[in-house]
Amino acid sequence: MSGRLVIAGLGPGAEGLVTPQVAAALAGASDVVGYIPYVARVAPRPGLTLHATDNRVELDRAAHALEMAAAGRQVVVVSSGDPGVFAMASAVFEALETGPAEWQALQIEVLPGITAMLAAAARAGAPLGHDFCAINLSDNLKPWALIEKRLRLAAEADLAMAFYNPRSASRPEGFARALDVLREACGDARPVIFARAVSTPEEQILTVPLTEARPEMADMRTVVILGNSATRILRRPGGDIVYTPRSVPA
Amino acid sequence: MSGRLVIAGLGPGAEGLVTPQVAAALAGASDVVGYIPYVARVAPRPGLTLHATDNRVELDRAAHALEMAAAGRQVVVVSSGDPGVFAMASAVFEALETGPAEWQALQIEVLPGITAMLAAAARAGAPLGHDFCAINLSDNLKPWALIEKRLRLAAEADLAMAFYNPRSASRPEGFARALDVLREACGDARPVIFARAVSTPEEQILTVPLTEARPEMADMRTVVILGNSATRILRRPGGDIVYTPRSVPA
Repeated sequence: MSGRLVIAGLGPGAEGLVTPQVAAALAGASDVVGYIPYVARVAPRPGLTLHATDNRVELDRAAHALEMAAAGRQVVVVSSGDPGVFAMASAVFEALETGPAEWQALQIEVLPGITAMLAAAARAGAPLGHDFCAINLSDNLKPWALIEKRLRLAAEADLAMAFYNPRSASRPEGFARALDVLREACGDARPVIFARAVSTPEEQILTVPLTEARPEMADMRTVVILGNSATRILRRPGGDIVYTPRSVPA
Repeated sequence: MSGRLVIAGLGPGAEGLVTPQVAAALAGASDVVGYIPYVARVAPRPGLTLHATDNRVELDRAAHALEMAAAGRQVVVVSSGDPGVFAMASAVFEALETGPAEWQALQIEVLPGITAMLAAAARAGAPLGHDFCAINLSDNLKPWALIEKRLRLAAEADLAMAFYNPRSASRPEGFARALDVLREACGDARPVIFARAVSTPEEQILTVPLTEARPEMADMRTVVILGNSATRILRRPGGDIVYTPRSVPA
């Protein structure tokens, strides 16, 4: 059997959010590769080898997966959420581009998943129901000045914003600066949603006005959503709802 | 039994992309409400009433769903893709906000789905692997000048862009103008992906340089993805891959 590489998204955590396509790929895998907590979500079985590696070794992990596929294995690289959103798909293609010629004929497939911002948005209501952007707040792989520039331009465009990796243990000061920039650029009390561990037993959803958002409301398991200037909170006995209307009056 | 309203995303088309959570909600529904082609994806069964309505009646459809839930029915509003991305969730909350008091205690849940841009990105590679935005190109609900402004600012921020509703039958000229704005603002030959009917038997994926993109490459079933300035095409025997690297050098 010739080797094959699948890059699959496990969704944010709940089994009910794993697509049947991804479940089938895992059922046919000989090897599953990924960051420790994501590989831990795959049930062990005879014939399946689990390769769990630490964070920040994405390119090594990608190369290992490509090597095994080139050697004839049925390899699934797992990411949380969607593999194409701040996850393993780009890392695999970076490794592929600079890798040996025998990798270039490999069959590679990306299987989408429910990404954190959309699971979080669904729990809050519909804060991303109008134009929006997704920005990775980690400055591991890009200069901080570029992040600030993007925040200011996104605010000027009046886009709702979803922030991934808002606050790492190693660089907690970045998110405080991001909140300062956003308060200055937006100048209002629009809602901010802190969605932690969405769809898991540890899920916590906190909504506050931008003026009251604090850096310590986010950690590494949080995705943060900032509304646009029209985003509203419906206070109701059935549960508060944060949503962005579809229309902008002329 | 008290009524309940679920707003569910069916994903882009393939059964393998419908989450188990959404499948379970449909299995427990008494009434399914939505646009004709999406309701057609739900299998009829005894005890289930299908309410299929035409396009552009979103608020009426939402009010009808809320009324039925308030009357004790188990109602599922279906959208293609994700219900929170240019779909029914915001329409339901708009109807809810202006609706009667008895709707305010209703139990309402949004179930996320695989949105078109992420399914399209997965088929192409990983064009949304770095910061990106999602913009609805229809000017039914917002002024065209705002769309142009957002395109220019997104280009200045060097975001990859996903465009929903690029070209309606009634307003085909908008997308031609959008392409002109983007060519001027981006000034390069970065890849554009036209992804039509992703995950269905009619799927077509076309990738061209921005300089060669033409309005007629899109229709109402197409989502369009424009790379950022670093987006690359890997030409390879195993199939071309379009991806955006994770890093931006300082």
